[in-house]
Amino acid sequence: MKIEECLNEHNMNQRLLRIRYAVRGPILERALAIQADLEKGVRKPFKRVIRANIGDCHALGQRPITFIRQVLALATCPSLHMLQDIPEDVKERVREILGECVSGSVGSYSPAPGLLLIRKHVAQYLTARDGVSANFNNIYLGSGASDLIKSVLTLFVEKVDGKPPGVMIPIPQYPLFSGTLSELGLQQVDYYLDEDEGWALKYEELERSWRAASEHCSVRALVVINPGNPTGQVLSRDNIEDIIRFAYKHNLFILADEVYQENIISKPFHSFKKVMHEMGDPYKQLQLSSFLTCSKGWSAECGLRAGVCELVSLQPRVLTALEAARSTQQCASVLGQCVVDCVVRPPAPSSPSFPLFSSERDRLRRTLTERALAAHAAFNSIPGYFCNPIEVTSFVLFKLKVQCLHFHELKYRQKQNRRPGLVPDEFYCLRLLEETGVCVVPGSGFGQRPGSYHFRTTILHDREEFSYMLACIRRFHLNFIEEYS
Amino acid sequence: MKIEECLNEHNMNQRLLRIRYAVRGPILERALAIQADLEKGVRKPFKRVIRANIGDCHALGQRPITFIRQVLALATCPSLHMLQDIPEDVKERVREILGECVSGSVGSYSPAPGLLLIRKHVAQYLTARDGVSANFNNIYLGSGASDLIKSVLTLFVEKVDGKPPGVMIPIPQYPLFSGTLSELGLQQVDYYLDEDEGWALKYEELERSWRAASEHCSVRALVVINPGNPTGQVLSRDNIEDIIRFAYKHNLFILADEVYQENIISKPFHSFKKVMHEMGDPYKQLQLSSFLTCSKGWSAECGLRAGVCELVSLQPRVLTALEAARSTQQCASVLGQCVVDCVVRPPAPSSPSFPLFSSERDRLRRTLTERALAAHAAFNSIPGYFCNPIEVTSFVLFKLKVQCLHFHELKYRQKQNRRPGLVPDEFYCLRLLEETGVCVVPGSGFGQRPGSYHFRTTILHDREEFSYMLACIRRFHLNFIEEYS
Repeated sequence: MKIEECLNEHNMNQRLLRIRYAVRGPILERALAIQADLEKGVRKPFKRVIRANIGDCHALGQRPITFIRQVLALATCPSLHMLQDIPEDVKERVREILGECVSGSVGSYSPAPGLLLIRKHVAQYLTARDGVSANFNNIYLGSGASDLIKSVLTLFVEKVDGKPPGVMIPIPQYPLFSGTLSELGLQQVDYYLDEDEGWALKYEELERSWRAASEHCSVRALVVINPGNPTGQVLSRDNIEDIIRFAYKHNLFILADEVYQENIISKPFHSFKKVMHEMGDPYKQLQLSSFLTCSKGWSAECGLRAGVCELVSLQPRVLTALEAARSTQQCASVLGQCVVDCVVRPPAPSSPSFPLFSSERDRLRRTLTERALAAHAAFNSIPGYFCNPIEVTSFVLFKLKVQCLHFHELKYRQKQNRRPGLVPDEFYCLRLLEETGVCVVPGSGFGQRPGSYHFRTTILHDREEFSYMLACIRRFHLNFIEEYS
Repeated sequence: MKIEECLNEHNMNQRLLRIRYAVRGPILERALAIQADLEKGVRKPFKRVIRANIGDCHALGQRPITFIRQVLALATCPSLHMLQDIPEDVKERVREILGECVSGSVGSYSPAPGLLLIRKHVAQYLTARDGVSANFNNIYLGSGASDLIKSVLTLFVEKVDGKPPGVMIPIPQYPLFSGTLSELGLQQVDYYLDEDEGWALKYEELERSWRAASEHCSVRALVVINPGNPTGQVLSRDNIEDIIRFAYKHNLFILADEVYQENIISKPFHSFKKVMHEMGDPYKQLQLSSFLTCSKGWSAECGLRAGVCELVSLQPRVLTALEAARSTQQCASVLGQCVVDCVVRPPAPSSPSFPLFSSERDRLRRTLTERALAAHAAFNSIPGYFCNPIEVTSFVLFKLKVQCLHFHELKYRQKQNRRPGLVPDEFYCLRLLEETGVCVVPGSGFGQRPGSYHFRTTILHDREEFSYMLACIRRFHLNFIEEYS
């Protein structure tokens, strides 16, 4: 006899059923299944799966920074202290950090916002970056930026004047935002970036989006992703000022996802906090949260889960409530916090670790930049592919200017069946995977203007793998348009 | 000119303002402030603060298990491989784990539920523990048990038949539960444990609680904490069977917080899953989630944030939604996952690490057990203190049988003022802190029967520190009752 199930898909939290996270979605699942098939000896038209779905640098062969790994190894096993080939500054760094851990162990809990010493180092780093004083009391360390972004978004879950709360996000966006808004029941308010203008943000589009949303919700916050993910664009200073004026006009809280700031190729990076302060009153009083991560940039330690949030101009009562909510989860991994320390306070030029550190970091930057530029040129030469100049290493978002009959047919079929099924770029990416083993993310996973189609690929692979991937994509694409035109 | 604040305490998420997390609450904050004062040279009637508020073993001087730390050091710095004093089985373990990490780096993301190899090892461990087959697909690794408990509770955020969802929790309880229910907007449905019967759970009390709550909410799930925190009791097998029958009768989902299972002193531990299966149909079909942690037991690696959840008999669609929600946070720390592997697969008796490992683990168990028994005897000898026999190492919950006028007066004053202020046991613990430097958690932070007062202290300190703490508490208490009687 089968008993009645207490929890089922009909009586569970319906918001969770609406979460879509394309970067780890059905296409990745299919890629993993194909990989498992290949390992079992199943024959396919290719020998291996190329994962280009997520900006996971180490997974794609990037070597970790030795300084970070030595600090972690020594912090977990202080008995390694006597080893000769561990530089003095690593030992000194570990002494400092362990001196801050209760009883000198990374195995004891830290305070909920993180170890005080490391929060102070983050504040010093931000002060130097922005030329504006940062207060360590406003710094929170988390399990990656995602963890902190979710905490900050949670603050807005409250009706205002009887209206549900809404949060503006760029389209295309990173699906952490759409997914978290779904989970928290916050209204997603889309504003479109302008692909034809290098993914710039237009003031009128912000106003349009706000006006349309304000009819049914109370818009509380504005998410900006700069440098952009998945667009790979860097906002101009003018654009940032526009956004700040807009936020001031409508009394919005700014969430600035600035996690790719260390990946910019040549443009200058302006943090929202810095620009706000340089604009002076009243703008410098705006409320802001800014997010950093150790999963990107030269550290790229995705698996160690380390992120940082700075909260500017929040009321003490709000911070206390945020801290209470985070306290129920105790604290972020202390080893992750150690990585934050290394990132915001890399070896000083005079220290014994510096020569190796700087050569590792510089080689990385050089390689990633070369790859990005090569990728841009190579992909843009494929007929029907378009991509704005790449300003950030890691990934590229392509527009598929494909006039295939099949794309239109797919759309038509969906309308007839009135069921979601595959949207055209999902269909395209799935066929790319099945025929070549290359796994990329369709633009629909990030959001895009209706009728436009994209895909995002990471470009972190080594030269040989990249050439192979490019050849696969080109061959597939040419066959695809021939088949469907 | 001060601009209007977008986010303030009136328009923020009001649920967050209701979170109380006593273990890291105002008394700890005061303790940290006092400690900072002492460091600055401020004179107090004591020289140091004794933290007995949280079960943070390493913070209280417990030494980490060498095997775990060697695995972590080697996993972060594989170049240490050539070191002679790292045992072969540690090297082999690291080879296996890194073989599972994409491109052999702990710096790459794992799948959202955790590395497959480690989930398989957890399944083998649970199968051996319960004599019931566990499926690795039902195993999730998280940033501590707290992270996973929150995820599972999130599943129940949905009205049923127009009624808000409710979750039954024991009183006293660990405030992770009350805090998370507050944050998620789930109704907290209290059932009282019976202190006079060794904190046993009575079937009639479960029924009373359910009936009372069912008038205004739909009771969906039942939390059990076994071994109990803060009570330190272990449920008898009969008690567990009663609870399972009750859950079956009312179609409830069981959340079994079993994180202290490795800390039991002498009684046998029965997991809910094992008992359900031994009871046979229909009980073995009940839906259940069970939680383990690496922060307790012999590993006690609180700062590394590693926990495990097994989900039993959930629909695939529900699991998929849970996984999507967890995917937006990417994955738990891969180094935390390595700790899980060490805990569920400690060195085999024939391996080179075994002699040191077993001597470290056994010494720990012996010491903690001795301390618990000594603490029980010593505290129970203080007039006005009562505590049931201690069945779990780590902490003790005392009932204050204090007939002080002052306690009554405090209650009276609160009624008059109609404001919360300090409840009597908070007042007691705060004075204990101010006068002796000893920081414990008042029973009101865990919940208690109206009119009864308690405090919980950890008993993880070394012998000398413990004697000092005990003397402080005894002296304070005797003065307190003299002053207020």
